[in-house]
Amino acid sequence: MLDKTISGEISVSDMMGAIGRRARSAARQLATVPASQKDAALLAMAAALNAAIPAILEANGADVARAQESGASAAFIDRLTLNAARVVAMSEGLRTIAALPDPVGTTIAAWERPNGLAIERVRTPLGVIGVIYESRPNVTADAGALCLKAGNAVILRGGSDSAQSARAIHAALVAGLTVAGLPEDAIQIVPTTDRAAVGDMLKGLSGNLDVIVPRGGRSLVARVQDEARVPVFAHLEGLCHVYVDASADLSMAIDIVVNSKMRRTGICGAAETLLVDRAVAATHLVPILESLAQKGCQIRATDEVRALFAASERAEPVDFDTEYLDAIISVALVDGVAGAIAHIERHSSHHTEAIVADDAAAVAAFMNGIDSAILLHNASTQFADGGEFGMGAEIGIATGKMHARGPVGVEQLTSFNYRVRGNGQTRP
Amino acid sequence: MLDKTISGEISVSDMMGAIGRRARSAARQLATVPASQKDAALLAMAAALNAAIPAILEANGADVARAQESGASAAFIDRLTLNAARVVAMSEGLRTIAALPDPVGTTIAAWERPNGLAIERVRTPLGVIGVIYESRPNVTADAGALCLKAGNAVILRGGSDSAQSARAIHAALVAGLTVAGLPEDAIQIVPTTDRAAVGDMLKGLSGNLDVIVPRGGRSLVARVQDEARVPVFAHLEGLCHVYVDASADLSMAIDIVVNSKMRRTGICGAAETLLVDRAVAATHLVPILESLAQKGCQIRATDEVRALFAASERAEPVDFDTEYLDAIISVALVDGVAGAIAHIERHSSHHTEAIVADDAAAVAAFMNGIDSAILLHNASTQFADGGEFGMGAEIGIATGKMHARGPVGVEQLTSFNYRVRGNGQTRP
Repeated sequence: MLDKTISGEISVSDMMGAIGRRARSAARQLATVPASQKDAALLAMAAALNAAIPAILEANGADVARAQESGASAAFIDRLTLNAARVVAMSEGLRTIAALPDPVGTTIAAWERPNGLAIERVRTPLGVIGVIYESRPNVTADAGALCLKAGNAVILRGGSDSAQSARAIHAALVAGLTVAGLPEDAIQIVPTTDRAAVGDMLKGLSGNLDVIVPRGGRSLVARVQDEARVPVFAHLEGLCHVYVDASADLSMAIDIVVNSKMRRTGICGAAETLLVDRAVAATHLVPILESLAQKGCQIRATDEVRALFAASERAEPVDFDTEYLDAIISVALVDGVAGAIAHIERHSSHHTEAIVADDAAAVAAFMNGIDSAILLHNASTQFADGGEFGMGAEIGIATGKMHARGPVGVEQLTSFNYRVRGNGQTRP
Repeated sequence: MLDKTISGEISVSDMMGAIGRRARSAARQLATVPASQKDAALLAMAAALNAAIPAILEANGADVARAQESGASAAFIDRLTLNAARVVAMSEGLRTIAALPDPVGTTIAAWERPNGLAIERVRTPLGVIGVIYESRPNVTADAGALCLKAGNAVILRGGSDSAQSARAIHAALVAGLTVAGLPEDAIQIVPTTDRAAVGDMLKGLSGNLDVIVPRGGRSLVARVQDEARVPVFAHLEGLCHVYVDASADLSMAIDIVVNSKMRRTGICGAAETLLVDRAVAATHLVPILESLAQKGCQIRATDEVRALFAASERAEPVDFDTEYLDAIISVALVDGVAGAIAHIERHSSHHTEAIVADDAAAVAAFMNGIDSAILLHNASTQFADGGEFGMGAEIGIATGKMHARGPVGVEQLTSFNYRVRGNGQTRP
């Protein structure tokens, strides 16, 4: 429904067109702004967020009340609900981003040609980024700040459930932009929950939108991928595997499997499938599964696994293609690393996979043979996170293979161009 | 029309599905093949091309005869026609690609985290690349070889006008693959000119196509961009500008403008618009335009330019948005580098722009203020070429900002993933 107080008589399409043009204009300005000015804005945004805690919590209270009336689940209400500590955490997130190095203008590569031409590949902003997300209010601050740091203008389109929270957070971001003398159109929020606005974004706003980042559930991402006429940083599910090789240290394997699955079950880097080398089924399988079961994990296993570990349910074929995001794991035996690679290539969402092994040849085969964004050796899949990678913050984990792959941080929100310096060269 | 001898009763869609599955399977094998084997294949392909010169010229003769019967233009016939020297040049191109370093497996970045995790970003193949092109037969060899070098399988879909030539060239490439023990499905050619095959490719062949590279005219690229459900390396037109600043050396400016426009007028890096700083209109404009006119270039200019240089036609507004690809140039005066930037940002296709200047501040403003793939200082726009950049060969010049930008060579045909090595780390 169109918000009459903001849009008046204007159609959604006209409004979105204007938002796109203002974003492009802001992006042009941001492209040449010094790092110090962007960082000043980020710090002012952080201060404004803290100052606006009462207003943000009041807006959030209205969103939460509406969600409760509509019978939303407890998990949904939890994701939606803010408190002072959560707003302060958002604010700290902005300070962290301010402290990161500015990627814009850095030289990625430089070389000289025999004719004397000096060629540099230099990072540039992407331009205008559209972020389409669901009910998590913190995305408003995180995505706005990351895009700004990389010199981009951003158009935020949040879910209707968190609309009032998002607007209150957005007001604080704009206040910070203004303090630092940056255009307030650098971070815009779509002031309507009409789905036609998303359709306009997917069409690219007449060339004024350079990339779309969908952050949300499978159906949102699928719609965006299917309909977008502009590039998309796809964030699909994380159907992540842990493979325990015959050469694995058992105690390390237990720690890594339990952490990969159970530390937090609801994140995309949580393991969903355990593969154990058939050669060590007799020694490694049961202790690992017992540890998982003790932590409250439900085991869904193949018949040969169940023959060794009775306290498990039978896995249906679909289990090996399911991202549970819950305390459930599917388990199978495989024939060494080659068997693990074959299983993973068939079932993985190409997000994150881990091998526990001591054998260097098995590790090399795993690293070279699997086409996933993140491959780990002797470490938990839950490290699949921009912060854990040292990127400071991330807008998500991309599972596509183009441009950004894995954690999408500030650097991944840039493009590059070539700058060639000569002294009069012409081409023969 | 479906080629019955190859496809029998199979529908185009079934045939394309099978091509996609075979390509994916070949891509999996290619991903772990050593550089030496890929290079051996490239050299064997080069030898096979030379050995097949009679067969290729016979097939090409049939294509050319058909084009002549249908009344194709002389320029079209020239692009289509092969001779022994042109085939040898293709073959030399393959040897050049064989001599390039293998990008796959190289470490792009590496760092260590405080918890001891060692993170590497490593180049990987993209997977399966679709190349949709028009009548230039050499694209078959160039694109096939570049994709192979980067460890990708490729599906080639050439124009119907060059179908027989493309098949003869393709046969030589497959012979080379076989000699080196690589799967012949690494380089497939679509054996039908039915347009439905292109539609299937644009839909992504059920996930078996990772990126599409359109190489051809504006309408082909526009159709691909509009309909593709997979990422596209857009190669749009090159509406390239040369700006002559007040600080430019006049004789250098003449050389660069004339070379940028007239060396070859039909390539995407040819200049289409000349902008001259109003401050030096009296001294610089006429000598530059006289040199262009002497080379046979038609001048289309604004009224204030025509007042200084009578031998020019009046430029209509559309002239400043036209890629002539011919001996025609549009000319305007601007107010210094700021005026040049404003004009270029309004009219450029974001391909390549050059500044001729001595003033470092003007150069810096130009480099930082224009969002084009290639920016040159005191050098001809005709250097916008992968070979001239030292990339060995290119599949085209990308004008998009995602993943690949500027010349698309072997390195741009790769993706990357993260490889994380620990010794038992779990996430707190």
